[in-house]
Amino acid sequence: MQIAVLSGATTKFGELWEQSPRSLAQEVVSQAIEQAGIEKKETQALFVGNMLAGILGGQENIGAFFADELGLEVPAVRIEGACASGGLAVHQAVLSLLTGKYQTVLILGIEKMTDYKPEEVAQALMAAGSDEERKAGLTFPGLYALMAQAHMEKYGTTEEEMAAVAVKNHFHACLNEKAQFKKEITIDDVLKSAKVADPLKLLDCSPISDGATAIILSSKFKVQSSRDKPVFIAASAVATDTLALADREDLISLKATKKAARKAYQMAGLGPEDIDLAEVHDCFTIAEIMAMEDLGFFEKGKAGQAILKGETKIGGKGPIINSSGGLKAGGHPVGATGVKQIVEVFNQLSGQAGKRQVKGAKIGLAHNVAGSGALAVVHILSNL
Amino acid sequence: MQIAVLSGATTKFGELWEQSPRSLAQEVVSQAIEQAGIEKKETQALFVGNMLAGILGGQENIGAFFADELGLEVPAVRIEGACASGGLAVHQAVLSLLTGKYQTVLILGIEKMTDYKPEEVAQALMAAGSDEERKAGLTFPGLYALMAQAHMEKYGTTEEEMAAVAVKNHFHACLNEKAQFKKEITIDDVLKSAKVADPLKLLDCSPISDGATAIILSSKFKVQSSRDKPVFIAASAVATDTLALADREDLISLKATKKAARKAYQMAGLGPEDIDLAEVHDCFTIAEIMAMEDLGFFEKGKAGQAILKGETKIGGKGPIINSSGGLKAGGHPVGATGVKQIVEVFNQLSGQAGKRQVKGAKIGLAHNVAGSGALAVVHILSNL
Repeated sequence: MQIAVLSGATTKFGELWEQSPRSLAQEVVSQAIEQAGIEKKETQALFVGNMLAGILGGQENIGAFFADELGLEVPAVRIEGACASGGLAVHQAVLSLLTGKYQTVLILGIEKMTDYKPEEVAQALMAAGSDEERKAGLTFPGLYALMAQAHMEKYGTTEEEMAAVAVKNHFHACLNEKAQFKKEITIDDVLKSAKVADPLKLLDCSPISDGATAIILSSKFKVQSSRDKPVFIAASAVATDTLALADREDLISLKATKKAARKAYQMAGLGPEDIDLAEVHDCFTIAEIMAMEDLGFFEKGKAGQAILKGETKIGGKGPIINSSGGLKAGGHPVGATGVKQIVEVFNQLSGQAGKRQVKGAKIGLAHNVAGSGALAVVHILSNL
Repeated sequence: MQIAVLSGATTKFGELWEQSPRSLAQEVVSQAIEQAGIEKKETQALFVGNMLAGILGGQENIGAFFADELGLEVPAVRIEGACASGGLAVHQAVLSLLTGKYQTVLILGIEKMTDYKPEEVAQALMAAGSDEERKAGLTFPGLYALMAQAHMEKYGTTEEEMAAVAVKNHFHACLNEKAQFKKEITIDDVLKSAKVADPLKLLDCSPISDGATAIILSSKFKVQSSRDKPVFIAASAVATDTLALADREDLISLKATKKAARKAYQMAGLGPEDIDLAEVHDCFTIAEIMAMEDLGFFEKGKAGQAILKGETKIGGKGPIINSSGGLKAGGHPVGATGVKQIVEVFNQLSGQAGKRQVKGAKIGLAHNVAGSGALAVVHILSNL
C-alpha cells in the first residue's frame, strides 16, 4: 500500500500571544484540507500530537477536544511522546492507514508554550526526563551539555562546529516565512552568547515556541497531472532507549536514533547515501551533530567539520539539513515539531519550498526525538 | 486477520499508597507475560493508556518511560483520551496488529491518583471537560447530574433505579479479589449517602483509585488443547461527540456511545441481543443506565427498571453488566479502566472469572467513555 502526503500546512512558529490552541488548529487544518483538495468530511480519523496541554494548559482529552473544535465527528486520539509527540502521531496515523480501515486521515501537531512563565515551561519540559535526573537538578540543556562534553572529549568536536549548526539553521530560517528567528547570526555571535550549560550557550539552544502543523495522509489519491509528483511515506519507524542518560552505554550517540534509522532504511530499501535532505531534531546544536552521525550521513566524529564546511547548507553537497531552520531557528513547539518536519520534507519533495528549495530533491528524512533520546521516530519520504 | 487476547492481568484497584507506577506496571506486565506463555522479547510494541501522569505526577514521555522500566526496547507510545485512555490504547494496539507489521503487542493501562490531594485530583480530572464547563464551576458529578436530571424528567427514571446500579456493582465487586470496594450496600445506603450533585449521591459515584492493567494481544497464537477457548477481538470502534454538554442535541444519550456501538456491531456482524455480558463505563450510576440503552440492550427509558429487577446481575437473564464491580465498586484508575474492562471480559469468556463466572458466556462487550461522553470506545470480544 502506498501512502501519500496530500498536504501539509504550518502556522508561523514563535510567540503567538494573540492566538489560542483553537485558532492555531483551525488555521492549519483548514489550510491542509484546502491544499489537499478534499472535503473535510473525507477525513476519517484525527491524530493529535501534543505534550503539554495538560501539564501547562489544564486541558487533556484533546483528541476529542480538537475533533469537536474542528467539527470532525471522527475517531480521535491524542498521542504523547514528549518532543516526539508529533512524529509519533504521524507514525500512528500511518499504521491506521496500513490497516486498510481508513483511507484519509488528519494529523495535527500543536503546542502552546509562551503563555506560561519560563520556569513553569522548563519544569513541564523536564516531565520528559527521568525522576533521578529531575531530582539531580538536571534540565535538558544540562543533559545535552553532558552529551556535548562526551562528544568533544572523544572526537575533538569543537564549540565552533556546534556554533556552525546554529549559524546554518538561522540562515535557512531567513528563507522560511514560518520560522521563529528570521535573523542571520555568526559563529562569533554564538560563541559570545550567554552560557546556559557548558559548553552550550544561548544560541546553541532551540527556543520555546507556539505553533501548529497539520498533515493529511491518504492511501487513496490520484495524480492530477504529469507535473504532479506525489510524495509518499516510504518508511515510518520508532525505537526506544533508556530514559536516563546514566543507564546508557555511552553519551556520544542516541541509540534510539540509530535503531529507528536502521529500521526505516530497511523498510524503504534505502540507505543514508540516498537521502537528499533531512529535518533532524536539533533541540541543541550538539543534537544535530549527533543526528548526522547516528543517521549515517557521516562517520562518528566527522559531522562537525562537514557542517562547518557548509556541506549540509542549502547549496552544499548535502544531505541538506534542516532547510526549514530546524528546531533551533524555525522554532520548537514540541508537539508540532515532528509534524512540521514532515511538512518541510513534503514541501521540498513537491517543489513547494520557495526560496529554500533544494534542487532535484527526491528523498527526504524526518528525525524526531523525545527528551534526551529515550525515543526516536524516523520517517522517510520519497517522490520517486 | 484474527486477533487473540493471550492474557490479561490487573492489580488490585484502590488506595495503593505503598506502590509506585513502576511497581504497579512491573506487577501486571510480568503476570501478563507469564500467563500468555511468551517470552518478554516476543513483545513488539507497547501502548500505554494514561491520563494524569503529567498533570498530577509531573511525568510525561511515559511510553518510553515504561518501555525502559519494563526492559522492553520496543516502539512505545502513550495514548491519552481522558477516562477512555485505556480503551483507546487497546484500539491503537489492535490497529497496529491489523497492519501485519506487528504480531504481538502489550497494552498497559495505568493511573496513580490517591497520592494527591482530592481537590488536585478533581481539578486534574476536569482537564477532560470543556473550558466553559470549568469556568462555570462544573465538575464531572455535576455534568452527570445534569444528564440524570434530564433522564429522570424524560423517562421518569428514579433515584432507586440509579441506586440499584451501585448495589449490583458492589455485590459483583464482593466476588472480585481485585475490586476496590468489597462491601455490599443496600438501596437505602445509597439513597441516604451524602448528596454530591443532585440527584447523585456519594454512592452513585465511582471512586478515585490507583491501579494498573496489562493485556497481551496477538495475531500469532496456537490453541494448546481442545479445552482452550481463544478469545478474539471481534470489533474495536471509536467515536466522538462534542466536548461540552451544552453543544449537544440532548442529555439523555451519549451519541459517541451510540455511534461507536453501531460501528462495533457492524464490524462483528452482531447485535446487542448477542451480548452475554458487558463491562460498561459506570463512572456514575446514571451512566450505566444510559449505557444500557445507548448500547441497545434496552429501549430508552427501560434500563432502570431492568436493573432494579436484577436482570443485569450475575444469575439474571442478562446481559450481565459490570461483573467486575464496574468503575463504581471495582475502582476507576482512569487510564487503567478501559484495559481492565477488557481483562474482565476476557476472563469471563475464557472461563477464568472464578466466583463471578457468567455461565456459558460467549460474547462480551467493553464500553469506555472519555469525560462526559466526548469520546467512546467499544470493543466486542468473542470465544466463538
